[in-house]
Amino acid sequence: MTIAIRPIAPGEGGVLLDMVKALADDHGFADKMKSSAADLEAALFAPQPIVGCLLAFLDGAPAGCAFWHRSFATSRGQEVMYLEDLSVLPAYRRKGVARALLKALAGLARDKGFPSIYWIMMGWNEAGRALYKEAGAELEDGLTFCRLADGALERLAGKAP
Amino acid sequence: MTIAIRPIAPGEGGVLLDMVKALADDHGFADKMKSSAADLEAALFAPQPIVGCLLAFLDGAPAGCAFWHRSFATSRGQEVMYLEDLSVLPAYRRKGVARALLKALAGLARDKGFPSIYWIMMGWNEAGRALYKEAGAELEDGLTFCRLADGALERLAGKAP
Repeated sequence: MTIAIRPIAPGEGGVLLDMVKALADDHGFADKMKSSAADLEAALFAPQPIVGCLLAFLDGAPAGCAFWHRSFATSRGQEVMYLEDLSVLPAYRRKGVARALLKALAGLARDKGFPSIYWIMMGWNEAGRALYKEAGAELEDGLTFCRLADGALERLAGKAP
Repeated sequence: MTIAIRPIAPGEGGVLLDMVKALADDHGFADKMKSSAADLEAALFAPQPIVGCLLAFLDGAPAGCAFWHRSFATSRGQEVMYLEDLSVLPAYRRKGVARALLKALAGLARDKGFPSIYWIMMGWNEAGRALYKEAGAELEDGLTFCRLADGALERLAGKAP
């Protein structure tokens, strides 16, 4: 069994979308997915992209992705890498694909001069917890995710002061 | 008492750094701050910045900031706004500065075409929880922050597969 990893290429947005959807499915928000393959490719292959993606292939079959974006840490005063989606298609799980993607992403971050990678996971994700600890990540529990979106954003923007 | 809010201008990196440090102090990692005023200005006034910042003034005195960066949601297939630091200097707290900054940021997000703003807070931050709920944000508890940094990143990147 061979795992090969490389940056995504134009035309592979559909493959990536399947992986992003698999992750959304695991987290119970597949019904909220609004993204299309064309949206993802437009962001990835823009003139000044803020996103990037590695794809993993298991014996040649697309198996998983690490989709990241540029981020910024005011504590460091420099750009860091944010891992938005680390996903492996259900048929290819428990074969080391996620581990290989995380390692390749660390190499990419180092080559691009990012001093760190950060991401958020659900606290109940024990498989993720084991993998990330083994990879050397520091974990901090007890965080709350906050989102102001769509109608709520409009309402706050439009409110009298 | 008048609260005025506007984008940060060149030369105000030092004022911003004080605000960022005040927040780091509240969260117990002031000793880990590596950022300088020059670092923050370099990022803010770069040719293609991925960050931005609003400053709040209370009767003319610099009182707080909302420092954000461009982010990307694969679920939407488009850029969203990430609020990195919402900070009010201790002397100016409990006067509505954070609320005013959040509202101004919502207006900025709308004007720039971002469909949402998201951020992370410590679960114990009850004052933040009340403010964000009142502003219309959805909150999701039980998340874990993961970071692979510096030596740990190098080690993972350099490991045999």
